[in-house]
Amino acid sequence: MHEQMKRYKMLLEDALAASFFAEGEQDELSQAMRYSLLAGGKRLRGILCLAACEMAGGKLEDALPFAMAIEMIHAYSLIHDDLPAMDNDTMRRGKPTNHVVYGEAMAILAGDGLLTDAFWLMSGVPNARTLDALREVAHAAGSFGMVGGQALDMRFGAPYEGLEAVKAIHRKKTGCLITVPVVAGLMLSGASEREVEQGRQYGWHLGVAFQIIDDLLDLIGDEAQMGKHLGKDEAEEKMTWPAMVGQERARMDAKYETDAAVLALDIFGEKAAFLRQLAMNMLERVN
Amino acid sequence: MHEQMKRYKMLLEDALAASFFAEGEQDELSQAMRYSLLAGGKRLRGILCLAACEMAGGKLEDALPFAMAIEMIHAYSLIHDDLPAMDNDTMRRGKPTNHVVYGEAMAILAGDGLLTDAFWLMSGVPNARTLDALREVAHAAGSFGMVGGQALDMRFGAPYEGLEAVKAIHRKKTGCLITVPVVAGLMLSGASEREVEQGRQYGWHLGVAFQIIDDLLDLIGDEAQMGKHLGKDEAEEKMTWPAMVGQERARMDAKYETDAAVLALDIFGEKAAFLRQLAMNMLERVN
Repeated sequence: MHEQMKRYKMLLEDALAASFFAEGEQDELSQAMRYSLLAGGKRLRGILCLAACEMAGGKLEDALPFAMAIEMIHAYSLIHDDLPAMDNDTMRRGKPTNHVVYGEAMAILAGDGLLTDAFWLMSGVPNARTLDALREVAHAAGSFGMVGGQALDMRFGAPYEGLEAVKAIHRKKTGCLITVPVVAGLMLSGASEREVEQGRQYGWHLGVAFQIIDDLLDLIGDEAQMGKHLGKDEAEEKMTWPAMVGQERARMDAKYETDAAVLALDIFGEKAAFLRQLAMNMLERVN
Repeated sequence: MHEQMKRYKMLLEDALAASFFAEGEQDELSQAMRYSLLAGGKRLRGILCLAACEMAGGKLEDALPFAMAIEMIHAYSLIHDDLPAMDNDTMRRGKPTNHVVYGEAMAILAGDGLLTDAFWLMSGVPNARTLDALREVAHAAGSFGMVGGQALDMRFGAPYEGLEAVKAIHRKKTGCLITVPVVAGLMLSGASEREVEQGRQYGWHLGVAFQIIDDLLDLIGDEAQMGKHLGKDEAEEKMTWPAMVGQERARMDAKYETDAAVLALDIFGEKAAFLRQLAMNMLERVN
């Protein structure tokens, strides 16, 4: 597990570090894009894409541009979320946020560039399912998915209320971009429709578990280890899963979702060991 | 000419008005996206895509989602350009800009949503060249193209200087998104590589002519007719083509670029009448 994780992460980090935007590294836009893209992070989304593709017998070189692109989309969403007009965050992964370093205008453009270039990168993959996989990513990232979830979050989940509102926000804002790398990786591997749908179930439950665990860590986590200010959700009276149901019940829900994610992989047998373990390790962080 | 223009424009306006984002028309994000997308405008980019496809014998229904998507990308770029952190414009096409109506956060998300959903829309076209055409759009809109041009504009074209700086900004910021609808429309029609390249030349010269003419109109145009504040370039000492070479020479350059655009269409013979006339009519506005 650990070795395979390191292999995926290094493959991804190396490819991202070698990627190059517009007029070269001297260009301020490229610098701003690279600043956030190469700021570390777990690379969960990219790793899910590589692992799903390899699990189903696909070629890693087909999944790699998608893994990179989804990390680029994730990086853009963080840059825009951190803007003064949005969450107004000044620290992210232990470093000043993009707009603090490059200014608001350049941060907006860096996000726009990462998002657009992500589609350019995906479109270059010579695979029979490239267009289908790209379509899934666009759907997951746009107004039907992540951007829609961010807008929903801004109005506290309305028209939904209580836990239903939290679920709706989680599903769109975080869940979509955790589900889609699994779906895209499987499509590019040539997996059957049934396998793709099981992968979608896995990603779906993993995404819910991820968000509950993230909310829990904001309450109980270690600030230095997380590299960001914690307790912010509580201070801002944000609607989180533990705030709705309590810490105890939130832990149980995270366990239930993790079990459901693991179960969805049955169709892949032994080959799913990595993705199963990944889900279980995530749960370990709050136990 | 006039009838054909009206037909393309109506086809496009009707399709855009019928398009629907995320949770429906009641949703604030969808409203913000539609507010700017349906705010009128010449629809030059969308019309170029439809006309190029039809000129080369393609099906309008294949080009239509691309025409819509390119208008969505254009609309997003205007929303983000108008933001307080960028150009800080409060009026656009005779109406308050997006962030004035919906607030900065929603305006950022509306732009992000339009950009992402544009790729979703394009990816659904059942055509052998869909992926190639989508790739051209991504390249034209991202850090290699439009977003790169915006960043270049922010630093006054550096490292280029004088007219070279203006050319570099124009080429990327405006030219790419005027060239690419022609290229995409031709690709989707099944045109030959030589035809696509001639279309690219046409779009390229048309884009330069368009920007010179736009700069001239900011100096000599009628504010009520244009629906925006004029003279802003001069007041802000923006680097424009006429500011670099004078009005007289700028007019000559616009004429030269228009002639070059028209010439590039020779390969299409009589079928290019509409695109030729479109270029010549544009030039008429400053003569």
